[in-house]
Amino acid sequence: MSKLTTVQLKPPYLILIGEEDDASYAKTGLGIIQWQPERVAGQLRFPGCTLDLGVPDMTVREAAQAHVGSLVIGVAPVGGTIPDRWWDVIEEAALAGLDIVCGLHVKLSDNPVLAAAAEKSGARLVDVRESPPNLPVGNGIKRRGRRLLTVGTDCVVGKKYSALALDRAMREAGMKSTFRATGQTGIMIAGEGIPIDAVVADFISGAAELLSPANDDDHWDVIEGQGSLLHPGYSGVSLGLLHGSQPDAFVVCHDAARKNVSGWEHYSVPSVKQCIELHEVLGRRTNPEIRCVGISVNTSMLPEQERAPCLADLSADTGLPCIDPLTGGCAPIVNYIRAQFSE
Amino acid sequence: MSKLTTVQLKPPYLILIGEEDDASYAKTGLGIIQWQPERVAGQLRFPGCTLDLGVPDMTVREAAQAHVGSLVIGVAPVGGTIPDRWWDVIEEAALAGLDIVCGLHVKLSDNPVLAAAAEKSGARLVDVRESPPNLPVGNGIKRRGRRLLTVGTDCVVGKKYSALALDRAMREAGMKSTFRATGQTGIMIAGEGIPIDAVVADFISGAAELLSPANDDDHWDVIEGQGSLLHPGYSGVSLGLLHGSQPDAFVVCHDAARKNVSGWEHYSVPSVKQCIELHEVLGRRTNPEIRCVGISVNTSMLPEQERAPCLADLSADTGLPCIDPLTGGCAPIVNYIRAQFSE
Repeated sequence: MSKLTTVQLKPPYLILIGEEDDASYAKTGLGIIQWQPERVAGQLRFPGCTLDLGVPDMTVREAAQAHVGSLVIGVAPVGGTIPDRWWDVIEEAALAGLDIVCGLHVKLSDNPVLAAAAEKSGARLVDVRESPPNLPVGNGIKRRGRRLLTVGTDCVVGKKYSALALDRAMREAGMKSTFRATGQTGIMIAGEGIPIDAVVADFISGAAELLSPANDDDHWDVIEGQGSLLHPGYSGVSLGLLHGSQPDAFVVCHDAARKNVSGWEHYSVPSVKQCIELHEVLGRRTNPEIRCVGISVNTSMLPEQERAPCLADLSADTGLPCIDPLTGGCAPIVNYIRAQFSE
Repeated sequence: MSKLTTVQLKPPYLILIGEEDDASYAKTGLGIIQWQPERVAGQLRFPGCTLDLGVPDMTVREAAQAHVGSLVIGVAPVGGTIPDRWWDVIEEAALAGLDIVCGLHVKLSDNPVLAAAAEKSGARLVDVRESPPNLPVGNGIKRRGRRLLTVGTDCVVGKKYSALALDRAMREAGMKSTFRATGQTGIMIAGEGIPIDAVVADFISGAAELLSPANDDDHWDVIEGQGSLLHPGYSGVSLGLLHGSQPDAFVVCHDAARKNVSGWEHYSVPSVKQCIELHEVLGRRTNPEIRCVGISVNTSMLPEQERAPCLADLSADTGLPCIDPLTGGCAPIVNYIRAQFSE
């Protein structure tokens, strides 16, 4: 029987930018630099590329000499695929022994030349959208350590960003904390994780258990949520992740300006209060002590003068700290957690 | 883009029993005979086999001449695998053009001789535990027709049996109804379905939508439930199936004697009432009209004199018809459905 494991990446990274000029398509590379700069050795840009991640330029040869672990595809080009003219350098990297890490809808091993190059050098071809093999069924047994799950009133409401920001703020406040990634970008940032929406349905909660193993009593896993319990497409992922994570605490992420479910406009977004109640009722099953510790709101689409009142209203309504992590930081929620779990 | 489709089997069946003598290991074959005798052409028994499904004995050659569509492995031998001495006849059937249908933890195409035989004749090797390819993400759009989902307070509480019995009782009462299978045995009985716990997590509700397409306004799909919303291992499957099925009605299946979750003994089984409330709250998301129409209880493990009072108590407690389908039939629930949906 093979060992149970999450997807694990080999640092440091050389980030492939190619000739991408538009920062909005380089979110993966930028995200890694923003959250884990110490994992990045350099960037690989083609001649004429104007985008700069602010790390040293490196060729594949230089990267190999510097013992770089992985070439990470750091952009999501239009079409979601790898441009033809990139394959040469990717193959060169694989031949030089660098793992190739990709989060696009492309199966690296479908390229026979690349597969042969990797075979020859022993490099791995890592598609971070692919589930690791041999996942367990969730056992529901309580694990040591604390867990916080970011959940949402919808998809794309800042669950990954909030988890990363909370993890960083908690560590800066002197707490023990680890970010746990459940999606491809999060995995590339953390260097480890499980793409929870890609696992076979029977193993969702088991994957969540594997992702967040037993730890010190005062250690927090800050787990990136996925989907939403009331999402017509993805609710199963969210409930399995909730049950497997056994969170002591959860933070509801919400877009203040969004009325309807993104891409499912015939559904309205549930209220923050309904979302809190549902997570309490369902989460209690695997952790009777579960409680909401805050609300993380994206207020960027509101008119400037409505942003602070929106947060104040939500806070008054729920009795919980309410932040926009992009503008106000996470301190109110971190302080609330310290007070709630001070024993 | 390939066509979206469920797993579909080719009738009629030749059911392979081999030398199995113990009826409890032949549940699949017996289930097909019990619920869909018209799909069965015959049984294939090895010399000395004492088990008899009550259908004609047939060789592979006779089956091929009679235009039998599939050889169905009708038993689950100890170990869950196919005995070595069975492969010759399975290969013979594949060579003769019969599809091979298997619900065991064995990948048929892993046998190279069998794979070659199937390739030669054009027969399919159908592992009914395997998800069909190209499933959609759930869109949550309301479909025409009525749907009933059997749900449970736990796994193995009679969700498949109740769905089959309700479907049959509804048809006998003159209603339009189709059983929709979500597990391997159900699929072999129905001849079609999706093993919902084997699909990738992102596609659970989409698979449920595909399984139960739009239909006549007065037609019922009776959908086999899986897992339980409060199951520590399988809740994600159950919620995705609930949201994708958009049930107008659900029946709660329950084992009257079970105190703890089967195989997860550190969890107690939730109450029928809690189960009803949770399904109403969550099911409303994709069908605001969802309601519970009855409770299907396995009372076989109770002392004889406690069975009727158990059903009466539950019925008084919930105001709903309460049956043991194995002993009392489904009429009370069917009558309740007719009254509730009489428009």
